[in-house]
Amino acid sequence: MLLTDQHCHSVVVADLGMDAFASLLTESDRLPAPGTSPFDSALGLAVRRWCPPALDLPEHTGPEEYLARRAELGPVEATRRLLAEAGLAHCLVDTGLTTAIGRPLLPLPEFAAATGAQVREVVRLESVATGVDSDAHGWPDAVREALDTACAVAGAVAVKSVLAYRHGLAVPAERPARTEVVKAAGRWLSGPRERLTDPVLLHHLLWTALESGLPLQLHTGFGDPDLRLHQADPSLLVDFIRAAEPSGVPLVLLHGYPYHRQAAWLAQAFPQVYADIGLAVSYTGTRATAVLGEVLELAPFGKLLFSTDAYGLPELFLVGAAQYRHSLDRLLGAWQADGACSAADAERLTRLVSADNARRLYRL
Amino acid sequence: MLLTDQHCHSVVVADLGMDAFASLLTESDRLPAPGTSPFDSALGLAVRRWCPPALDLPEHTGPEEYLARRAELGPVEATRRLLAEAGLAHCLVDTGLTTAIGRPLLPLPEFAAATGAQVREVVRLESVATGVDSDAHGWPDAVREALDTACAVAGAVAVKSVLAYRHGLAVPAERPARTEVVKAAGRWLSGPRERLTDPVLLHHLLWTALESGLPLQLHTGFGDPDLRLHQADPSLLVDFIRAAEPSGVPLVLLHGYPYHRQAAWLAQAFPQVYADIGLAVSYTGTRATAVLGEVLELAPFGKLLFSTDAYGLPELFLVGAAQYRHSLDRLLGAWQADGACSAADAERLTRLVSADNARRLYRL
Amino acid sequence: MLLTDQHCHSVVVADLGMDAFASLLTESDRLPAPGTSPFDSALGLAVRRWCPPALDLPEHTGPEEYLARRAELGPVEATRRLLAEAGLAHCLVDTGLTTAIGRPLLPLPEFAAATGAQVREVVRLESVATGVDSDAHGWPDAVREALDTACAVAGAVAVKSVLAYRHGLAVPAERPARTEVVKAAGRWLSGPRERLTDPVLLHHLLWTALESGLPLQLHTGFGDPDLRLHQADPSLLVDFIRAAEPSGVPLVLLHGYPYHRQAAWLAQAFPQVYADIGLAVSYTGTRATAVLGEVLELAPFGKLLFSTDAYGLPELFLVGAAQYRHSLDRLLGAWQADGACSAADAERLTRLVSADNARRLYRL
Repeated sequence: MLLTDQHCHSVVVADLGMDAFASLLTESDRLPAPGTSPFDSALGLAVRRWCPPALDLPEHTGPEEYLARRAELGPVEATRRLLAEAGLAHCLVDTGLTTAIGRPLLPLPEFAAATGAQVREVVRLESVATGVDSDAHGWPDAVREALDTACAVAGAVAVKSVLAYRHGLAVPAERPARTEVVKAAGRWLSGPRERLTDPVLLHHLLWTALESGLPLQLHTGFGDPDLRLHQADPSLLVDFIRAAEPSGVPLVLLHGYPYHRQAAWLAQAFPQVYADIGLAVSYTGTRATAVLGEVLELAPFGKLLFSTDAYGLPELFLVGAAQYRHSLDRLLGAWQADGACSAADAERLTRLVSADNARRLYRL
Repeated sequence: MLLTDQHCHSVVVADLGMDAFASLLTESDRLPAPGTSPFDSALGLAVRRWCPPALDLPEHTGPEEYLARRAELGPVEATRRLLAEAGLAHCLVDTGLTTAIGRPLLPLPEFAAATGAQVREVVRLESVATGVDSDAHGWPDAVREALDTACAVAGAVAVKSVLAYRHGLAVPAERPARTEVVKAAGRWLSGPRERLTDPVLLHHLLWTALESGLPLQLHTGFGDPDLRLHQADPSLLVDFIRAAEPSGVPLVLLHGYPYHRQAAWLAQAFPQVYADIGLAVSYTGTRATAVLGEVLELAPFGKLLFSTDAYGLPELFLVGAAQYRHSLDRLLGAWQADGACSAADAERLTRLVSADNARRLYRL
Repeated sequence: MLLTDQHCHSVVVADLGMDAFASLLTESDRLPAPGTSPFDSALGLAVRRWCPPALDLPEHTGPEEYLARRAELGPVEATRRLLAEAGLAHCLVDTGLTTAIGRPLLPLPEFAAATGAQVREVVRLESVATGVDSDAHGWPDAVREALDTACAVAGAVAVKSVLAYRHGLAVPAERPARTEVVKAAGRWLSGPRERLTDPVLLHHLLWTALESGLPLQLHTGFGDPDLRLHQADPSLLVDFIRAAEPSGVPLVLLHGYPYHRQAAWLAQAFPQVYADIGLAVSYTGTRATAVLGEVLELAPFGKLLFSTDAYGLPELFLVGAAQYRHSLDRLLGAWQADGACSAADAERLTRLVSADNARRLYRL
């Protein structure tokens, strides 16, 4: 079954040496500790399992041999094979990142051609806001207009917040007062405008996003070292979730891990909340079977969404897709062996999470 | 083996249409999101597995067919069959809830007859306190008297706190001073008295409960959307647990999920703390095997208690009981296959958790 | 394969009656609840599985029979057998604890002889600081000198902090100003000096430890009832981890459970952070297989370290080592059966975690 990847990024098409490749196999942006390699990880094993066959090598091929073959084929052909093998029907691409390891990401039309998928865009709130030129007084309206424009130009199907990285998810229930926003905008506009971290402005962006009516994706759970992990617990969002409920705008909790059970509870408790399994499935490799099991304890099957959150390496699309298919099959196979559901039930769950929920939610 | 259900609620005996039935299959009190159904969940699958045979249908029967057969048998007969099939020796019923989806719950004598179990009552602190008529000055004593009376009248075996819903579990170590309680009572008594959320009064209730000498059950972990999940983490109770230790009053941490490992640690660390697996076992369906495994990592086998936390639907009693039996069997079967324990060890653990611990704790 | 136990304590060599023995099978320092026994636990089952064969008894021997045989052999012979059977190449012993249940722990030379392992010392920061005699003004330097001396005398390979027990892990990014440290030292020195809990002094100790250049082990996660568990979540350390990064000093997050996934993320995100699986593996018994699986979801295989955290009972060394070997074998066997890695990959992971990572980190 073709998958709907509801959250991902584009890839780098380049000959990558060992260090550059390895640096995209970890959430860390630092050099690895002496004597260690990112290949020695659940993700590293998963790459060596799922990707070599796409390049005509056996499973579990070692890193050097894999990279040699990748170079031999050339980055264009290797990328094409890896992306095609992922079997994606739709990709919703967060365009807030434009480079990886200092190289530009593949433009969306070429990315679409390589995947064979329909590509739709997800607009990142903080990126839009950072680019807004206005005085403080006009900033709130300018941001809304900039967001509307960005979404219209991109034909966006969703917007995304990386608030988790900037201030954490403990968002108050009350929309920030306009006077407070203007004051905070004044501080922001008079500074170096490098990185938007003011909580008033970040929270204002969430409320602005709700006005767009588009589903709002929120990073939650693990990510790169910028994060204070405990402040990315999605359950901290509960006051905002309740406050946003009347808007009817869907909130999509990305990743969630290791708080994915909390995300699943939110998806059960609140009709407008959805949960995602991206990033965790590829990073945890064979353990994705266990992680998916945990998410499905409370998440309504109609509220859970597949994604890869792949970024930089085309390998991450194939790993995300192949590991997901394999792990969900294994999990639901075990459920059936346990007598917990019928084959038809397992198929229905698979269809919902793999594609149908996202199609319904984003009107694809 | 007959089970001791150490925490549950009564049921609605009524012909339930699809929407009403489905609304009792989720912790949400909202309408489901468009295009989704609470039947598409781990609990939905568990209901369709364990309940149809009690109504002469095959496992995994679809929702429509199941409800049609349920209506055909009539609610009285269906309820009788489902409750009897659960195989309960004792039910400790929290009588703080009296209705479900706007209908009255079955009175305890009839509920007892339908289950075939001995039914004992658990008195809810906040319900008692809300009904107290007194001036502010007399409120602390009036509450204690009202609690004593309620427990005596009911022949209660335990009291229960839903503090987790009202203010969260970060309870200070110090008992609130009487002057503070009187002041807070004054505010409460002069208001609409709809919902007791004042932390001083809520904490006062806990201390009043300790004076009753009865085991104190506390809601912890997941529940309905009223909850701030992260404030329902039982580890937040640690200061109160230490302060309450000299009283010798058992504290029973209900549910706990997804903080059940934290609850298990508290049960190991503090002699008067017990942990419960209710709600989680039914809601997570076939995954209860994994959840039970997690709880048993640290929980002393003599401190863990079975319950269903069933409410509204008789189906939830059968699911809670049958899934528990099945999942514990599967888990302990795997332990034996792994060489981790003998068959006699597994039987002993099962007897303790299923009934003996609760019998000892509540002197049943 | 011989293991490197990177964090443990020495043992009591004594004839232990049922109650004394049982009291060392739990993190609680209280009497067990009426009608319960610490033998009824995952750890109790693990002791009864792994230890009786070392004393010529069958697996799963009951507690009474086991203790009778232990007494018959005598504590010296029983201890020798149990420790030798653990198969340890190196033991890094935290010497901050000197007694267990009121009896002295075996001195390191005799402990080394009994284990057959090379024993190296880990110096506990708070123990050193508590013994420092100085005026307030000289306290910061006196502590550093005392630590340097203690490490030199002991030939220490690491230092350890029990900050998690004293104030929790939410350490600010900023090193405490010297004037603040002197002020806090004044308060401490004028008091009974029983237990160092002042956060300024505790945080100062961490920074002093970084100056030693030795790897810094930090207790995180579960432990005895002194703990506020939620304040022992290793993710709370993130600001300190970032601030300490330029020092290059390795930070080793001990235990972590039930926050071991958080610890694993920190080990992935930050080059100088390592994670440990001690305590959790023995205490969770057969469930260690699941816990190891969870840790290995994000932890780089080159950053994870075996330990027992055994204390008091020689049985805890054997359980820690045997359960670890068994559980890692089972886990990696399942990975191979799933097609997730090759036998060579599994062997490599095992070598890294069992010994090689610790050898590299501590230059053994």
